[in-house]
Amino acid sequence: MNGAQALIRTLVNAGVNVCFANPGTSEMHFVAALDAVPEMRGVLTLFEGVATGAADGFSRIAERPAAVLLHLGPGLGNGLANLHNARRAGTAVLTVVGDHATYHKRFDAPLESDIDALAGAVSGWVQRTERIQDVARDAAAAVAAAIGPPAEVVTLILPADVSWQLGASVAPAPTPPTPGPPLVRDEALSAAAAALGSGEPAVLLIGGDATRERGLCAAARISAATGAKLLCETFPTRLERGAGLPMVGRLGYLPEMATYQLGGAKHLVLAGARSPVTFFAYPGQPGDLVPATCRVHELMGPAGASAALERLAELLAMDIKAPLAELCRPRLPTGELTAQSAAEVIGALLPEAAIVVDESNTSGVFLNPATEGAPRHDWLALTGGAIGYGLPAATGAAIAAPERPVLCLQADGSAMYTISALWTHARENLNITTVIFNNRAYAILRLELRKVGVDGAMGPKAKALLDLSEPTIDFVALATGMGVPAARATTAEQLAEALRTALAEPGPHLIDAIVPPVV
Amino acid sequence: MNGAQALIRTLVNAGVNVCFANPGTSEMHFVAALDAVPEMRGVLTLFEGVATGAADGFSRIAERPAAVLLHLGPGLGNGLANLHNARRAGTAVLTVVGDHATYHKRFDAPLESDIDALAGAVSGWVQRTERIQDVARDAAAAVAAAIGPPAEVVTLILPADVSWQLGASVAPAPTPPTPGPPLVRDEALSAAAAALGSGEPAVLLIGGDATRERGLCAAARISAATGAKLLCETFPTRLERGAGLPMVGRLGYLPEMATYQLGGAKHLVLAGARSPVTFFAYPGQPGDLVPATCRVHELMGPAGASAALERLAELLAMDIKAPLAELCRPRLPTGELTAQSAAEVIGALLPEAAIVVDESNTSGVFLNPATEGAPRHDWLALTGGAIGYGLPAATGAAIAAPERPVLCLQADGSAMYTISALWTHARENLNITTVIFNNRAYAILRLELRKVGVDGAMGPKAKALLDLSEPTIDFVALATGMGVPAARATTAEQLAEALRTALAEPGPHLIDAIVPPVV
Repeated sequence: MNGAQALIRTLVNAGVNVCFANPGTSEMHFVAALDAVPEMRGVLTLFEGVATGAADGFSRIAERPAAVLLHLGPGLGNGLANLHNARRAGTAVLTVVGDHATYHKRFDAPLESDIDALAGAVSGWVQRTERIQDVARDAAAAVAAAIGPPAEVVTLILPADVSWQLGASVAPAPTPPTPGPPLVRDEALSAAAAALGSGEPAVLLIGGDATRERGLCAAARISAATGAKLLCETFPTRLERGAGLPMVGRLGYLPEMATYQLGGAKHLVLAGARSPVTFFAYPGQPGDLVPATCRVHELMGPAGASAALERLAELLAMDIKAPLAELCRPRLPTGELTAQSAAEVIGALLPEAAIVVDESNTSGVFLNPATEGAPRHDWLALTGGAIGYGLPAATGAAIAAPERPVLCLQADGSAMYTISALWTHARENLNITTVIFNNRAYAILRLELRKVGVDGAMGPKAKALLDLSEPTIDFVALATGMGVPAARATTAEQLAEALRTALAEPGPHLIDAIVPPVV
Repeated sequence: MNGAQALIRTLVNAGVNVCFANPGTSEMHFVAALDAVPEMRGVLTLFEGVATGAADGFSRIAERPAAVLLHLGPGLGNGLANLHNARRAGTAVLTVVGDHATYHKRFDAPLESDIDALAGAVSGWVQRTERIQDVARDAAAAVAAAIGPPAEVVTLILPADVSWQLGASVAPAPTPPTPGPPLVRDEALSAAAAALGSGEPAVLLIGGDATRERGLCAAARISAATGAKLLCETFPTRLERGAGLPMVGRLGYLPEMATYQLGGAKHLVLAGARSPVTFFAYPGQPGDLVPATCRVHELMGPAGASAALERLAELLAMDIKAPLAELCRPRLPTGELTAQSAAEVIGALLPEAAIVVDESNTSGVFLNPATEGAPRHDWLALTGGAIGYGLPAATGAAIAAPERPVLCLQADGSAMYTISALWTHARENLNITTVIFNNRAYAILRLELRKVGVDGAMGPKAKALLDLSEPTIDFVALATGMGVPAARATTAEQLAEALRTALAEPGPHLIDAIVPPVV
């Protein structure tokens, strides 16, 4: 068995059976080996950023790592932005980067580059396998490192000659099974309980694995028992929400909003979330969002936050039930299509068990209230701020859960970063409905330009750099050009009709929803 | 004046007056400052890889650096592949990466990442400007480092607060003017002269600045005088060719071809080219292409190679004239469109003074003979092997030389990496005609799969990962969706008609040329 076959077999034995791939010459033995290991599914993407974003989306839903196959340093470079998002999401992604043969590197051939430096910037674990006899060991170690806890992005660098050499063995399935998340420390538990039980104004900010049902229920019980305000981090990796689950507000992206939400708090208890800071610095404004007189208590990091909240609920909310959202949808709107009416259409029609991949940016401001009473669903957010995550993450989510409808809510400017993901939606016949919020602008940057204090000085050249209207982008043409059926909506009725059609038919669809900018 | 204004003003003073931009919040003051410095042209791209590839193409034609404005680590990551190509091309690219405000970095906000590590992997010079009073000095130093010689990719990291602080000054235009390229060493000159004058079989391999008219003429004279075989590196940064210029063969990409070309040589003289190695390692084949009994003589590196060849010609070919190509085009073919007939159409119609950006990959195998007798033109090649360079490089070349027609010869799979460049072609009304060689496959990888020795084991899953036919990609739809007029050609006559139309009309065009794979 050659190195590539041993690698894939070891991955499959360890539960990794999907590989998003953009291979090149140095990965040809890996590609050939896919036929030797039928359990591994290879999914072709047309750009590495699609592959890495898909692996992130897959991991968020499947709760196990997908593999990504990339070609040398430039291929890894193309995938870095969505690996950055995966790193911030705390998802398990196993990146395999093919490299030149070990003896070829000294020639500094055209594609030679510093793979290790690039990998180190986004990975919690990096290993270069130099010998055929180490392939299985390193592959098993990579899976274990990716799973954690904490889950993380790991990178295994595989030289071409290690891939093609014979004589590799296969690592057995890992035993014992991977450890559970870490347990909360007693002192952290006591401090959080004291803070929340003090009667002083308090906020419980959740994130990490606490944005799933168990953590949400525990947190909602604590909030109900103590009066603490319950908030979720701004961009959760995976938020379970909708009818039958506790409702949780999200900390605002805008500093003014977040400051308002945290205002007056004397205690901030963190369960899976990090202490809140502004996304960017703004002249003359503090970056730390914690009020000056507020004490921060870290109950638990992202892994184990849910279990820690259950322990805390035992202390603080023994007989309290979590208040749950009731099924309550907006009425279908009519008339002009706006960010608000689009959100209402989505809230009215969101199907049961949907996975919502949200990169709607400014156009999504009305989505939260419009969907909080919809049937139960998952909400995936842009965790790292690197745009171009939505279409790829939807790809991975749909492959992780083929029985569930995926709704990709996608801003136009961000969509163009990884637009070729649509081809993979068609290729794999994925059950993804993409709604492009097409406001023909980098609207978020218009807002940011004002916030950093240069609005008064905004001249025509600056305005032009934030504008996507010359020429307008025809997303119906782009989607159909890549095999995805598409429709345009310029009224609320058209969006509703197109969404109904898309959700009723299997396979991918795209709706180009023309909306005015909200900012 | 704030830091951003001082930066742009300093760049303009130093001759940098085009900036390809994908800005984000941390670059908003840079964006605003564009209106304060009217001499700087801002060109919006929809993806950082387009911006960096455009800067490479610009620099190859304008022979001075363009600036690129990128947003934090993920933005730089998205631009890395084409910066890699620029590094291998030896072009001057000035990358400005906005970063969080200096005091904000400690918060590890979502977009925080290791910009320095990423920049270091592709840049010959990296500087982080931490103080407002250093902006002008660092900007001037960045331009000087980018210009060299040798020209290179440089990265200036500009924190948001340095950008928005007031009190910056402007660096004066650099005096004295930038130094010329280094001079050839007398010993290198003597050794090369002795080798080429020895009467033994010799090859003169040129690259760097020797692929321009002066260097080509000197090299051709030397070849004519000594009988040495004249070859050019496989992927030149900018090769001047066509009627009235010396003809030069290019070293083959395939090791078998290169080995044949170099076979029997006792001396290999390098003028601007590196000692030839295979692009990839192949099992059981040597990576070093120099024959075992051949001695290598390095006359000169990429900068100064042209002048060194002129010195050498003075010694070896005093009264010899360079043989020049005569105007000689293929006849317009008829019938089936193939890679060969497409090349003949292009050779028959290539306009005077065209800039050809070549990322045609396997489909381009017939282009070299079909165009060598066309009117004089420039040929830009994929120097670093990182695909997705063609459409972006064409963007930059067209902005550098708006009076010249740009012909972008683009393989389908590679086109999808940076397809959004078409929007910038339309936005800036660039005089670019893109021909997509649409063979619906990663054909190069089919070839490579055989070459690495796994052809016999190639199963359906491996084949599927190299196939782009399910679904087929409609490049006419993609182009028109981004505002570029487009046509499809399935016969040689249709390609000729579409190419004539595209070349006759100003502004961008795309032709989706459906060709069978050549491998």
